[in-house]
Amino acid sequence: MFKYTVTDTCDDSAGRCGLLETPHGPVETPVFMPVGTRGSVKGILPCQLEEMGARIVLANTYHMLLRPGPDVVEKLGGLHNFTGWHGPMLTDSGGFQVFSLSSLNRIGEDEVEFASHIDGSKIRLSPQIATEIQNKLGADIIMAFDECVELPCPPERMEQVVGRTIRWARQSLESHKRTDQLMFGIVQGGTDEGFRQHCSEELVKMNFPGYAIGGLSVGESHEEMIKTAAFTANLLPADKPRYLMGVGTPKDLVAAIGGGVDMFDCVMPTRNGRHGVAFTRNGAIRLRNAQFKLDIGPLDDHCDCYTCRNFSRGYLRHLFTVDKRMPEMAGPILVSLHNLSFYQWVMRETRRAIRENNFASWARQWTDYT
Amino acid sequence: MFKYTVTDTCDDSAGRCGLLETPHGPVETPVFMPVGTRGSVKGILPCQLEEMGARIVLANTYHMLLRPGPDVVEKLGGLHNFTGWHGPMLTDSGGFQVFSLSSLNRIGEDEVEFASHIDGSKIRLSPQIATEIQNKLGADIIMAFDECVELPCPPERMEQVVGRTIRWARQSLESHKRTDQLMFGIVQGGTDEGFRQHCSEELVKMNFPGYAIGGLSVGESHEEMIKTAAFTANLLPADKPRYLMGVGTPKDLVAAIGGGVDMFDCVMPTRNGRHGVAFTRNGAIRLRNAQFKLDIGPLDDHCDCYTCRNFSRGYLRHLFTVDKRMPEMAGPILVSLHNLSFYQWVMRETRRAIRENNFASWARQWTDYT
Repeated sequence: MFKYTVTDTCDDSAGRCGLLETPHGPVETPVFMPVGTRGSVKGILPCQLEEMGARIVLANTYHMLLRPGPDVVEKLGGLHNFTGWHGPMLTDSGGFQVFSLSSLNRIGEDEVEFASHIDGSKIRLSPQIATEIQNKLGADIIMAFDECVELPCPPERMEQVVGRTIRWARQSLESHKRTDQLMFGIVQGGTDEGFRQHCSEELVKMNFPGYAIGGLSVGESHEEMIKTAAFTANLLPADKPRYLMGVGTPKDLVAAIGGGVDMFDCVMPTRNGRHGVAFTRNGAIRLRNAQFKLDIGPLDDHCDCYTCRNFSRGYLRHLFTVDKRMPEMAGPILVSLHNLSFYQWVMRETRRAIRENNFASWARQWTDYT
Repeated sequence: MFKYTVTDTCDDSAGRCGLLETPHGPVETPVFMPVGTRGSVKGILPCQLEEMGARIVLANTYHMLLRPGPDVVEKLGGLHNFTGWHGPMLTDSGGFQVFSLSSLNRIGEDEVEFASHIDGSKIRLSPQIATEIQNKLGADIIMAFDECVELPCPPERMEQVVGRTIRWARQSLESHKRTDQLMFGIVQGGTDEGFRQHCSEELVKMNFPGYAIGGLSVGESHEEMIKTAAFTANLLPADKPRYLMGVGTPKDLVAAIGGGVDMFDCVMPTRNGRHGVAFTRNGAIRLRNAQFKLDIGPLDDHCDCYTCRNFSRGYLRHLFTVDKRMPEMAGPILVSLHNLSFYQWVMRETRRAIRENNFASWARQWTDYT
């Protein structure tokens, strides 16, 4: 039902192309996964994701757990039927949000207890419970439950995090019953190579069908992040997909792909889109700026997305500035659509550069991208 | 460039079908025009309007005047290029919003002065200025500048309103220079048949290519509105289109079509959609209601819109209830899309019933629609 094949490698970098086959269709890697936090990619419909070439969508277990709850999703046919996205899907384990969004009451050795950020109600999550929830949600790829910390983090605390993450990975794998879902393990360890090495080795022993690099993009620099991601990717089996969680800017993605990463997710294209910040081949632009008032050009001259084919920067600026309190809905929609399309274009370009065996030289143009 | 042809009439009602040809394409009547208040139908993209069968879109002169201003729209290529909607468009004259939204400073015999509801700046509007603005915006159909009042309204005040509206209609027509835009006159007069008759007669003498019935849906009952609309429609030339402004519910539309009205606009489908209220063949439903939590059915079993083809009531309810402060964007988008599609379906049905010469008997099913 699942299969991952590395189809191309590259002499001047660790970048590779692959094909991940899932019960809901194939995914070419490197791949960027739009984030449907609460069961919807904000402002973007499934038909629009399909049109722009997105192939796999992420949903957050933490958010789906709070509302509408895994039982409701299951009764409404599972995540695919619920959200109307019938391609491959991935759910995270909830770990990241538990440690970043909620009020933690207690981190035990085998479970955490936290207060919902919505209504304060007490919720327990453990490797078993997180797996059971993800089994009910029914994504094609699910994640082991892990512990996350901000960086910098003292070594004694990181040792605890890595220890728990390893133990929880085994417990997650043991609880996972559905054969139509792949479970990935998550490597923690901050920017410390020793911790990353230890965590990777222990997880690889468990023989997960894929591995994620977690705990990055949490306060460290671009350089530290890329160094750690590439170091960790290199410790993981070459024949398994590698997923760098929650990353990042186009520059981050290109650099991490050069380090051997295959999969990404990030809210940046939609969040920036909602705030009127558009990614273009010449860098990011703020549409609220007065300079765009009479600009008849598209966001990006070379982009063929729906937004760029049909709307001027001047019009998009109007949508964001017509009302100080709230933009016209079409503004966030159209710029999110463009940004996600831009990310898909970047991924197509990285795959092309790897197949043409000149990834590193192609990637140099992204070094100064802002 | 323009032509209006009545193609079908009906023995059991005053309902008729017609074809309105414009520089941006033909429009079958009866027609419902989605409202793009500030240059965008809230939450809905031009490609989605096209897919659902919408053929003509309205924009509000008052809002476009305040932001981004007619000069900006003109420099960005006129309303069609600006908004990305390349089918027929209509702009109102700004009259209704001046009298309902802004702080009026002064109503003179030949102009009004008001304070912008955005920043309080003083703005003057007159038949000449409103026409000039609409010439710059460049819609296919533009409206004469009129005076609007709430109902009930004392006769001495209504006499003043009708007098000004007639004088302003002549001044609007005299100021209108573009031959690629049709200007419609607007009949005022509240629910009083004498005022409506006088206003209609004076406007018909000016030989407008189309007529609107204004000043309804401002406080009177459904029955009063329909009675007045039908009475007024009957006073207008049979070979010209008749447009009932700002109306209404599906029941209102069906009843007014039976009285001889051809064109409508209303924010109700999108406004209700944003609030999670969906029109269905069995009446309007509130998606926030708990009864829809586990409902796997579409909004409307017989609807073929994108929303009904792909999403359950349970999912749509989730989008509206996941966050008390603000729904997931897809909720307002998908329900607005459905509601506008529903209105287009109602219009197709009215045209079919007229062509089949049994409009009145078909329309009876709408009498109790809520």
